[in-house]
Amino acid sequence: MIKVGIIGGTGYTGIELLRLLHNHTKVEVIAISSRSEAGKRVDEIFPSLVGSCDLIFSLPDDIILNECDVIFFATPYGVAMKGVGAFVKKGIKVIDLGADFRLNDKDEYKKWYGLDHTQDELLLLAIYGLCEINREKIKNANLIANPGCYPTTVALGLKPLIDNKLIDLTNIIADCKSGVSGAGRGANKATLLCEVSESFKAYGVSGHRHYSEIKQELSLLAGENVNLTFVPHLVPMIRGMQATIYVDLLDSDVDVQSIFESAYKDEYFITVLGAGNTPDTRNVRGSNFCQIGVQKAPYGNKLIVMSVIDNLVKGASGQAIQNMNILFGLDENLGLKQIGLIP
Amino acid sequence: MIKVGIIGGTGYTGIELLRLLHNHTKVEVIAISSRSEAGKRVDEIFPSLVGSCDLIFSLPDDIILNECDVIFFATPYGVAMKGVGAFVKKGIKVIDLGADFRLNDKDEYKKWYGLDHTQDELLLLAIYGLCEINREKIKNANLIANPGCYPTTVALGLKPLIDNKLIDLTNIIADCKSGVSGAGRGANKATLLCEVSESFKAYGVSGHRHYSEIKQELSLLAGENVNLTFVPHLVPMIRGMQATIYVDLLDSDVDVQSIFESAYKDEYFITVLGAGNTPDTRNVRGSNFCQIGVQKAPYGNKLIVMSVIDNLVKGASGQAIQNMNILFGLDENLGLKQIGLIP
Amino acid sequence: MIKVGIIGGTGYTGIELLRLLHNHTKVEVIAISSRSEAGKRVDEIFPSLVGSCDLIFSLPDDIILNECDVIFFATPYGVAMKGVGAFVKKGIKVIDLGADFRLNDKDEYKKWYGLDHTQDELLLLAIYGLCEINREKIKNANLIANPGCYPTTVALGLKPLIDNKLIDLTNIIADCKSGVSGAGRGANKATLLCEVSESFKAYGVSGHRHYSEIKQELSLLAGENVNLTFVPHLVPMIRGMQATIYVDLLDSDVDVQSIFESAYKDEYFITVLGAGNTPDTRNVRGSNFCQIGVQKAPYGNKLIVMSVIDNLVKGASGQAIQNMNILFGLDENLGLKQIGLIP
Amino acid sequence: MIKVGIIGGTGYTGIELLRLLHNHTKVEVIAISSRSEAGKRVDEIFPSLVGSCDLIFSLPDDIILNECDVIFFATPYGVAMKGVGAFVKKGIKVIDLGADFRLNDKDEYKKWYGLDHTQDELLLLAIYGLCEINREKIKNANLIANPGCYPTTVALGLKPLIDNKLIDLTNIIADCKSGVSGAGRGANKATLLCEVSESFKAYGVSGHRHYSEIKQELSLLAGENVNLTFVPHLVPMIRGMQATIYVDLLDSDVDVQSIFESAYKDEYFITVLGAGNTPDTRNVRGSNFCQIGVQKAPYGNKLIVMSVIDNLVKGASGQAIQNMNILFGLDENLGLKQIGLIP
Repeated sequence: MIKVGIIGGTGYTGIELLRLLHNHTKVEVIAISSRSEAGKRVDEIFPSLVGSCDLIFSLPDDIILNECDVIFFATPYGVAMKGVGAFVKKGIKVIDLGADFRLNDKDEYKKWYGLDHTQDELLLLAIYGLCEINREKIKNANLIANPGCYPTTVALGLKPLIDNKLIDLTNIIADCKSGVSGAGRGANKATLLCEVSESFKAYGVSGHRHYSEIKQELSLLAGENVNLTFVPHLVPMIRGMQATIYVDLLDSDVDVQSIFESAYKDEYFITVLGAGNTPDTRNVRGSNFCQIGVQKAPYGNKLIVMSVIDNLVKGASGQAIQNMNILFGLDENLGLKQIGLIP
Repeated sequence: MIKVGIIGGTGYTGIELLRLLHNHTKVEVIAISSRSEAGKRVDEIFPSLVGSCDLIFSLPDDIILNECDVIFFATPYGVAMKGVGAFVKKGIKVIDLGADFRLNDKDEYKKWYGLDHTQDELLLLAIYGLCEINREKIKNANLIANPGCYPTTVALGLKPLIDNKLIDLTNIIADCKSGVSGAGRGANKATLLCEVSESFKAYGVSGHRHYSEIKQELSLLAGENVNLTFVPHLVPMIRGMQATIYVDLLDSDVDVQSIFESAYKDEYFITVLGAGNTPDTRNVRGSNFCQIGVQKAPYGNKLIVMSVIDNLVKGASGQAIQNMNILFGLDENLGLKQIGLIP
Repeated sequence: MIKVGIIGGTGYTGIELLRLLHNHTKVEVIAISSRSEAGKRVDEIFPSLVGSCDLIFSLPDDIILNECDVIFFATPYGVAMKGVGAFVKKGIKVIDLGADFRLNDKDEYKKWYGLDHTQDELLLLAIYGLCEINREKIKNANLIANPGCYPTTVALGLKPLIDNKLIDLTNIIADCKSGVSGAGRGANKATLLCEVSESFKAYGVSGHRHYSEIKQELSLLAGENVNLTFVPHLVPMIRGMQATIYVDLLDSDVDVQSIFESAYKDEYFITVLGAGNTPDTRNVRGSNFCQIGVQKAPYGNKLIVMSVIDNLVKGASGQAIQNMNILFGLDENLGLKQIGLIP
Repeated sequence: MIKVGIIGGTGYTGIELLRLLHNHTKVEVIAISSRSEAGKRVDEIFPSLVGSCDLIFSLPDDIILNECDVIFFATPYGVAMKGVGAFVKKGIKVIDLGADFRLNDKDEYKKWYGLDHTQDELLLLAIYGLCEINREKIKNANLIANPGCYPTTVALGLKPLIDNKLIDLTNIIADCKSGVSGAGRGANKATLLCEVSESFKAYGVSGHRHYSEIKQELSLLAGENVNLTFVPHLVPMIRGMQATIYVDLLDSDVDVQSIFESAYKDEYFITVLGAGNTPDTRNVRGSNFCQIGVQKAPYGNKLIVMSVIDNLVKGASGQAIQNMNILFGLDENLGLKQIGLIP
């Protein structure tokens, strides 16, 4: 059994790791930490676990974490930057669900997160864990930067188009929509049910942290600088994310449907829907799948790509486990075969 | 008192007319028809009206309708086309909340609605009732085609830009989002709570009826042919609509915020939010306001316009009453001053 | 025009007062205070008001409040206890939406709210403002304790039965359900959308502050001590409250339907539904109505009373305005005739 | 591998069987029927299955069903009554998720379902599949009547009290609340999002089909006739059910918490929450668990039992699979260990 530790277990990505790993036959979670809840039973904070989990929150510096084979950091940005090094030195694999090792450019990190990045070596070491793009590099990684939810959704929606040089890279629009769980479990007036239920709005229009990450990954895919317009919106639901992406096809006669189907035919978690079908976020609720539909606009050479994931699974904890499976040479979908919770 | 009749009163636009007219001090609803519910008390179908409404559904050919000063058709497309003429001939004003008189081109009507348009004269007579655009024409109209919800939201968001010739008319994207009430009150598996709650999806991507109406109105505003890409989405909420519109500014130095504020400074129902603010559909819930925020994209010359309305009010019944107020020389906001229901 | 002041205007009852008073033709809100937001425009905090309200939050000790004819305290418990006296002395009417003057027994207040009640004289002066019960006393009051939402719902559901001595007063169960807005607008993990949406639970089962208030009012109605079992539950919706009340009829042949209809036939805001109908909270959404349905259980002598209100209107700000109307000799329903927002 | 067939696979219990069986390591679904969708791919109706399920809907009389070891009927009442016999004769185990074999008394069946029960022998044969009550009988059953959701919730909440003769059997109230998925996937105006979202109501107050089933099972547990008052309510959420049960303790000093803990200490799926805790339906969302909290009322000898399940899992398809596991001598929780989907 692979021994797993989780640092920062009281947020939504923490409980989601516990939920998904509970179905995984090759791992055992031996430690989970929380500075604020140390000493309490985990099932006291998350009663869904009563009867299924006997863990007690430890402090993040508890020595039991040194016995782990892999540690997930499910912490706010800034925490992993300081804490990851000690584990990596001991040969413990680390998967960081936060943002500390996603951006290659320290200035961008400073710009968006307001912190100086102090870990040059670790940053060089870190592999961006978008499995369908970086699978080979992930296999031998020691530190994985688990991607953000928006970057995952957008990059998977554009990869076949960029790989095949089918689109104008100067006029990309990603109109994205997220469920509220993306905002986390902190007490916050802005995400009270009474503030966000039965409503819809854009946010972060003047600049959102994931912009830089998306731009970086698209540019790496393209081998050249890519710009885009990115507007995130908040949807009155708990889970789910959709990117509606508008691009200009260089050749409007190309069979985009076939190109997507071919590009992803061997990817277990990527589902290209049949021609004319549009994805629905609920179909991936609680699952690690990404469903994609493509549609040429009725007029002009616009192509519309619709890509959906569960922001807490493929957009966070599920992809983290997928990365773990790759790291340890397991079947990539082990423990992750659940299908969406419908209805 | 202005005597009002409503044809087709069992849908959401029908009950919304009743709700709003209940607050209007210069009108009296004297008749409301429903083929299926004729003879039943209206408050039996809509118990929110118990104690506030003593009407009984009549048949649509009840002669009492001839005593009305104005008749609202809150019927599916096709019904008003046949029924409007008789009232117009008698000098009764008609406001059609359906689609029968919105499209000037009969071929477009046939294409999107599948019916031959048989009323050439009425079509010529009809005024498109987007009040902030056609106010002068509305004053003397006999037949008003009340606009669709998406066209209202998009046209109000683009009017100042088109009027001032600020944007590239060949690269407009309208990514629109609607609450579920836009789909109506018919029994339909696709809009069951269990099918659409906690989910998000695009629909009508290959072609939506409102596309033609939006294109027509934008082209009339521009004085030239305008194309656009239009993708509607379904949001898991009852009311509310947002258009997120992406355009290319011809001159990226222009002060768009001032232009919007100036354009709408005398419009009671159009609220231009302060610089940097984004609208939230809940702020217009149950009200006839349209709130608009504009934001330049952080990179490039893209401008993002966010326009929100309540699809059942400014997008349907509220605008219909605004049209009635204009028609009868009343204050345009009479009976329509309610602010949004928050929270 | 009656000059109105609001102390504590940033919560849900504050914005609801502003929304409702905006429709009231005989009042003008001249001041609204907020310690935390003093100096900011009200429509900055509540953008639904942009274009409809030019007020700026003042400090709660701003002298402009002394010019008011009536002041609403929309503050947490404890605040009104200290602040009300100064206004009452000046002859300004005060309506407290909080709990400070609802309980006649200071020990009960201490027990449930943890504070010593320091205002004996004011407490004696205060009238419990459940309009349909205490209308006569309210007319001449100087200080009104606006009732809690649960007590309003339960007391209105039981009044005809207690007045007519029809039930066993020792076996009453009130199984109550509330929308989330009852928990207020404070940043609180427990009322995040992701914590309460798509879920249902009981809370406060071992004791809830409204228990004592309900018991007091039922006992006053009965002229003897009444006990009850009261379990509140949280419903995943913004507004709305239902009490499902189970009582034992002393005489199972009594025509309960007629008794309810007769008891409330002159009450504008109380709607007794026809035999066999059950109320639905949405039918009173945003309105000051209380809808009641009664049904004998299929077996035994149990009677089931279902009473619904909008917790923010009849359960708070609407009833406060109804009290104001009575105080100032206005029509009781002035500004409060809106019907429920359907759908 | 156990070969499984499903009759009637287009409803919510059908897709839920597919979702849960997808995680089950000892079964293979070899056939799924639908009269209306025969010939179509199952993943066309339920896109959550794309990539995970290659089945095609067959007709309900397809001979492949004869190759099954067990057949689930996920059909409306009346269908299984006619169809079950042929399979039972062939020695194929049948689990009926509908109501046809739940009521022992044919007159009660006729009264509530309006049909004559024509299958006396099968009715005698059928075992009521509430696993925690009838486990021993289920082991050798040929036909299992899978319980209704309300009866499951209420019976599990009362079993320890009835077994230990702790309560007055003449004064039981079950105030129950259900998510909307209990109403099924049929096109129905009453369960449109716009009709039930953001609202709460009681329904079936004058009589509900599950009343008779609850009464039967409680009476069998008690060994004597039990009556109760049962009021179901509709909660604006997809999944989840709570019964809040009010009973009178015969001895108010009894340690009810210990009795519940002891009664269910060996039951994998029944979780008795710690003293003072109340269950939350989301904690069992998508899982087969039942969580129970008990609380003495602050006054009197009332006991409040709160029992929650996911109506589609423990209340339908999950319990059906639990029954299958028992029937085939498998671990009772095989394929059913998932924990609730939080958030």
